[in-house]
Amino acid sequence: MASQSCSAAQLASFFGPNTTNATGAAEYICSQFSGVSDRFTDTSFAVDSTYLLFSAYLVFSMQLGFAMLCAGSVRAKNTMNIMLTNVLDAAAGGLFYYMFGYAFAFGGPSNGFIGKHYFGLKNIPTSSSDYSSFLYQWAFAIAAAGITSGSIAERTQFVAYLIYSSFLTGFVYPVVSHWFWSPDGWASAFNTGDLLFGSGVIDFAGSGVVHMVGGLAGLYGALIEGPRIGRFDHGGRAVSLRGHSASLVVLGTFLLWFGWYGFNPGSFNRILVPYVSGNYYGQWSAVGRTAVTTTLAGCTAALTTLFVKRILSGHWNVTDVCNGLLGGFAAITAGCSVVEPWAAIICGFVAALVLISCNKLAEKVKFDDPLEAAQLHGGCGAWGVIFTALFATEDYVNQVYPGKPGRPYGLFMGGGGRLLAAHIIQILVIIGWVSATMGPLFFILHKLKLLRISEDDELAGMDLTRHGGFAYAYEDDEDAHKHGIQMRRIEPTSITPN
Amino acid sequence: MASQSCSAAQLASFFGPNTTNATGAAEYICSQFSGVSDRFTDTSFAVDSTYLLFSAYLVFSMQLGFAMLCAGSVRAKNTMNIMLTNVLDAAAGGLFYYMFGYAFAFGGPSNGFIGKHYFGLKNIPTSSSDYSSFLYQWAFAIAAAGITSGSIAERTQFVAYLIYSSFLTGFVYPVVSHWFWSPDGWASAFNTGDLLFGSGVIDFAGSGVVHMVGGLAGLYGALIEGPRIGRFDHGGRAVSLRGHSASLVVLGTFLLWFGWYGFNPGSFNRILVPYVSGNYYGQWSAVGRTAVTTTLAGCTAALTTLFVKRILSGHWNVTDVCNGLLGGFAAITAGCSVVEPWAAIICGFVAALVLISCNKLAEKVKFDDPLEAAQLHGGCGAWGVIFTALFATEDYVNQVYPGKPGRPYGLFMGGGGRLLAAHIIQILVIIGWVSATMGPLFFILHKLKLLRISEDDELAGMDLTRHGGFAYAYEDDEDAHKHGIQMRRIEPTSITPN
Amino acid sequence: MASQSCSAAQLASFFGPNTTNATGAAEYICSQFSGVSDRFTDTSFAVDSTYLLFSAYLVFSMQLGFAMLCAGSVRAKNTMNIMLTNVLDAAAGGLFYYMFGYAFAFGGPSNGFIGKHYFGLKNIPTSSSDYSSFLYQWAFAIAAAGITSGSIAERTQFVAYLIYSSFLTGFVYPVVSHWFWSPDGWASAFNTGDLLFGSGVIDFAGSGVVHMVGGLAGLYGALIEGPRIGRFDHGGRAVSLRGHSASLVVLGTFLLWFGWYGFNPGSFNRILVPYVSGNYYGQWSAVGRTAVTTTLAGCTAALTTLFVKRILSGHWNVTDVCNGLLGGFAAITAGCSVVEPWAAIICGFVAALVLISCNKLAEKVKFDDPLEAAQLHGGCGAWGVIFTALFATEDYVNQVYPGKPGRPYGLFMGGGGRLLAAHIIQILVIIGWVSATMGPLFFILHKLKLLRISEDDELAGMDLTRHGGFAYAYEDDEDAHKHGIQMRRIEPTSITPN
Repeated sequence: MASQSCSAAQLASFFGPNTTNATGAAEYICSQFSGVSDRFTDTSFAVDSTYLLFSAYLVFSMQLGFAMLCAGSVRAKNTMNIMLTNVLDAAAGGLFYYMFGYAFAFGGPSNGFIGKHYFGLKNIPTSSSDYSSFLYQWAFAIAAAGITSGSIAERTQFVAYLIYSSFLTGFVYPVVSHWFWSPDGWASAFNTGDLLFGSGVIDFAGSGVVHMVGGLAGLYGALIEGPRIGRFDHGGRAVSLRGHSASLVVLGTFLLWFGWYGFNPGSFNRILVPYVSGNYYGQWSAVGRTAVTTTLAGCTAALTTLFVKRILSGHWNVTDVCNGLLGGFAAITAGCSVVEPWAAIICGFVAALVLISCNKLAEKVKFDDPLEAAQLHGGCGAWGVIFTALFATEDYVNQVYPGKPGRPYGLFMGGGGRLLAAHIIQILVIIGWVSATMGPLFFILHKLKLLRISEDDELAGMDLTRHGGFAYAYEDDEDAHKHGIQMRRIEPTSITPN
Repeated sequence: MASQSCSAAQLASFFGPNTTNATGAAEYICSQFSGVSDRFTDTSFAVDSTYLLFSAYLVFSMQLGFAMLCAGSVRAKNTMNIMLTNVLDAAAGGLFYYMFGYAFAFGGPSNGFIGKHYFGLKNIPTSSSDYSSFLYQWAFAIAAAGITSGSIAERTQFVAYLIYSSFLTGFVYPVVSHWFWSPDGWASAFNTGDLLFGSGVIDFAGSGVVHMVGGLAGLYGALIEGPRIGRFDHGGRAVSLRGHSASLVVLGTFLLWFGWYGFNPGSFNRILVPYVSGNYYGQWSAVGRTAVTTTLAGCTAALTTLFVKRILSGHWNVTDVCNGLLGGFAAITAGCSVVEPWAAIICGFVAALVLISCNKLAEKVKFDDPLEAAQLHGGCGAWGVIFTALFATEDYVNQVYPGKPGRPYGLFMGGGGRLLAAHIIQILVIIGWVSATMGPLFFILHKLKLLRISEDDELAGMDLTRHGGFAYAYEDDEDAHKHGIQMRRIEPTSITPN
Repeated sequence: MASQSCSAAQLASFFGPNTTNATGAAEYICSQFSGVSDRFTDTSFAVDSTYLLFSAYLVFSMQLGFAMLCAGSVRAKNTMNIMLTNVLDAAAGGLFYYMFGYAFAFGGPSNGFIGKHYFGLKNIPTSSSDYSSFLYQWAFAIAAAGITSGSIAERTQFVAYLIYSSFLTGFVYPVVSHWFWSPDGWASAFNTGDLLFGSGVIDFAGSGVVHMVGGLAGLYGALIEGPRIGRFDHGGRAVSLRGHSASLVVLGTFLLWFGWYGFNPGSFNRILVPYVSGNYYGQWSAVGRTAVTTTLAGCTAALTTLFVKRILSGHWNVTDVCNGLLGGFAAITAGCSVVEPWAAIICGFVAALVLISCNKLAEKVKFDDPLEAAQLHGGCGAWGVIFTALFATEDYVNQVYPGKPGRPYGLFMGGGGRLLAAHIIQILVIIGWVSATMGPLFFILHKLKLLRISEDDELAGMDLTRHGGFAYAYEDDEDAHKHGIQMRRIEPTSITPN
């Protein structure tokens, strides 16, 4: 930037010896420019913080989206239970991410595996980490936990939720985000040292880091505790256990869509970054493009799901379309900032097919996930990681991950296979890590009889047995009472007439 | 701006021949100022993009508002159907607006009738059109489609939705927005050439462009397919077919209110625009004032509706108040940026009366619109267009539409009748255009038997017949089963006692 | 700021007599800097207005949160009633705050008791008050009214709502906000003259000004009209009158959480404020920290409530957790900007206990508040006022309330007792003011028979008797009709078999 380079010495030499106080004049002028430069610094911090904070609020609104989506997707008798877990993902996540999570994830300088500063936000803010960054990352951490809670809905003890949720937001997820997003992370594309395969992993907003982690954790939970009673009949055929409110499903889906504009475009963290100063094209354009790719991937996935499911099932299914839409979002999340809008359409189209296939497979192997969360976030998330390695463009990769010219980009865009190699590593490593942490955790909970509720509780529903009552009371107690009396009056009458 | 006008030649002449290198010094200093100017350019793009993107997200949240409002306003048996159409308005709208719509609307330079660049976002971004602009305009396009979907709810084939929605967001609406909002549009107040009546149309956020278009499209659809079964009894009297959830209606209304702060104030597109540099009064104030006029118009319309309906019907009706509120918003949308807050109160007051009158008229002519969308968006939208031509103030018109001093403004504010003339033309032209496009489309769908569902489907509800089941299941299948058994057991007992 | 202090005289003296036109050169350069400074001014206004407007939109979304929380917390038969009051709090509040409220609150220069300018937004904008400020403060005013509406739910005449809500948003609340937030307010920490106890009251976002006022107003209303029929049985034991939808409660709670990010961090009004120009730590960090303290207080209160209620009641209660969460938010609201994150955890922990105790007390004295609003906003709000006086840190107090070095801060942080003294005064004065205004108002309404509905109406529910019907219709009228016939058919059969 010109204004930061004001050299008083050079300017003084231009003024020369005939100027009464050439050095004084030059220093005076340059100090003015220095003040201007400071004000630009202030402005950047304010603009970028505004951008990041409001993005964080949007991402937080996804927690409401998860709560409504989950509530609508379970049976009425477990509504309070699942909503409480969503509230507590946020609440417990807040404390654990504050105490440990943020430090493990972004507490640099550190090694490539795990961060080690900022426990309890100590020494925050620094020049690179402000409170807004913590808030933004916390909202991501609880999103991961929210994904998992869907997979194990309707049959899991409440205490198990509290344990896995704290462990996931406080340790498992932060470590993964350290690997791929911290400048110290061994596989991070931001790593200032050597990059994995000369590339690092481009998982911009976390198809792998957030969605695969949350989905795989759910996979282990759901696998270990097994399907809900009645999900597969005696002949082994799948029985649909319909959620109790499609309105809540649609509400939740739209809220997640809304929040995804914080999740994906917000992952730039900063918007006041010119690529060439004074030009209309800068990071603000890339942010907008990211919002567009996100939108198009979701839209395409929704439409694809609509028509494919119409052919397969014979009707137009709104909850399937909602899930397809979310699958498109989960898939585009990795590459949203580095692909062209037309590629996002391919991403969404394939994501819909991936989700449908994963659901078919799940039915076949009698895997029960009430929210399709493992399939959606795990399956479509993995596709998103691969997709990015195929379609990332050279220009966008270099703009979004600057300072390392000649880095690899998408295979289909002529960027070679090194990005793909890094991304395959990412998928394997995430599978391995979640298998090594959440798998054993759920297994231990299972062995300690802390995972699954009793059969009686499951049949009666957890709201009644554990949470103090049903979620809904559309009729008055008095009315119900009267009704009950009336019913009872009918019965004896019908028995004792003669 | 002073800092952009740094003249090295002039500065060098001040330094004069005794300065060692007067030209060097002057150029050095001016190049510093040039760098500063570039940074201001960067800052403006970042601030304005942040402003526009978050406004776009708010406008997008209106789609959720429409979904909830529509869902709550229809009978339970058609809930899935109407929500699916809302999801698909957004999704299909995303693809069609990306492929065609944005190009038809804003693809300049072009003729006054239709744009011709940017198909599939080709060549975006430019100095005037960035991705954020596309996203913002897309959210508007799907709002228009969302309005229409309400009018034809509860009796329309799903395939008809897909067709009209794509046609509306991909062609009909974009052309209208080109006329009135593109710098090339023949009736645009931003037109850089000759203005219609020396004025152009001041439809700031689209009372005509969005609301009348959506409402009139709905009018044709609802007219052509006729009222729902049971909406008018054998004697021709109107029968209220109450929506199934007032909670969803209120939820949707508040979300629309929330989103309207993106719709109206966001239509400035940019906030970092000083009217006089260094002064506290600038476009940021106009943006705030627009939020205030929007608020006051809605509030007044809600209160007016409350009291008028109390007198007419004898009770305090929440759904009517919600519709009145939205009518106030639809009306203020055209003039929100160019009228005083007190005028917004007049706008809202009249809007409420317009809506009530339109509803009376609709009943009289046996027109059935489950959401009152044609009345609300069409009727109040038209009033908003007229209102603007009466109350737009000279100062605000010149600030919001700068560069053409002496342009007409509101008739009642002393600005003459030319703005009103332009606005009457707008109303006529929109009626003509929608009649020439959506009218025939719905008519053809009707003739092809693709518009209205069968009587059986309508009585049973579309959720069951077309969408795989009811939206709600508050009782367990098992419970329902038991209940069913019990009921059946009562019946034989009562029949066979002797 | 260096760039604002460009002295042409000094610069000219550096250039000296050998420069052809030293004064011309110096003035030329300084005028350039002056232009730069003007552009920074423009930028600040645009950035701060963007920040404040979007914060206002978030605060507005709390009204939706209140509506959903209230709706879910009452019985189904009063859903329309309570939602209508929430819509009208916003609408009537809009008009009354526009006409009077904002003027009473912020119409300076004025005396310490009440403002006297800006009625109907006359003379807005000024250098200190823009439309965005009005919008933001309006959203606060209606929040206060929204709190009160919860306390008197399910038994209050609709006309009483209209009267108290207008009075509260138009007069009672604005006066309180004048005292504590206006630069003219007698107890304001922003007062430019003498501060109360050398300190003034640090009620940053309104634990006292908003929450105590709304909660105490509700206390008077609920006390004067007495408990709902059936809330306490003949033996005087409390009977839980469960709300009809836990889903709406959770939806409302999350929306309030979402909106609180506008309420607390937004109360800075401006974000582009450097504490030292050019440094990464500025008001943007304080804004982020405020979001973090808010989050942590709510999270801790939620978890505390979860476990304490588990011990007390034996189950995991989601609605109690929601209320606990909100109690944590209400408490941190006063001190959110001036305490450390760890202190926010203490704040939330105690807030949960305060709420539980207040609820116990309420049951004991047979006080019935369907939303626990008096306990939550009044009780936790008062705790928040005290908490701030104990834990406010010296650095943060001086950054957030600059220009008065050596001012008192939190007692436990070594800042002496003067802040605590001021805060005790605040609590007493708010109790006194609300007692002197809202108490008599509710009493007069009671005496005029305008406060409580008739017993018949209460038993039947207000939706049916006053609002035109029930909020929900999950079954078709036709179905219900058939069902009714069937029921009737059973009865005679069972009576006439022989």
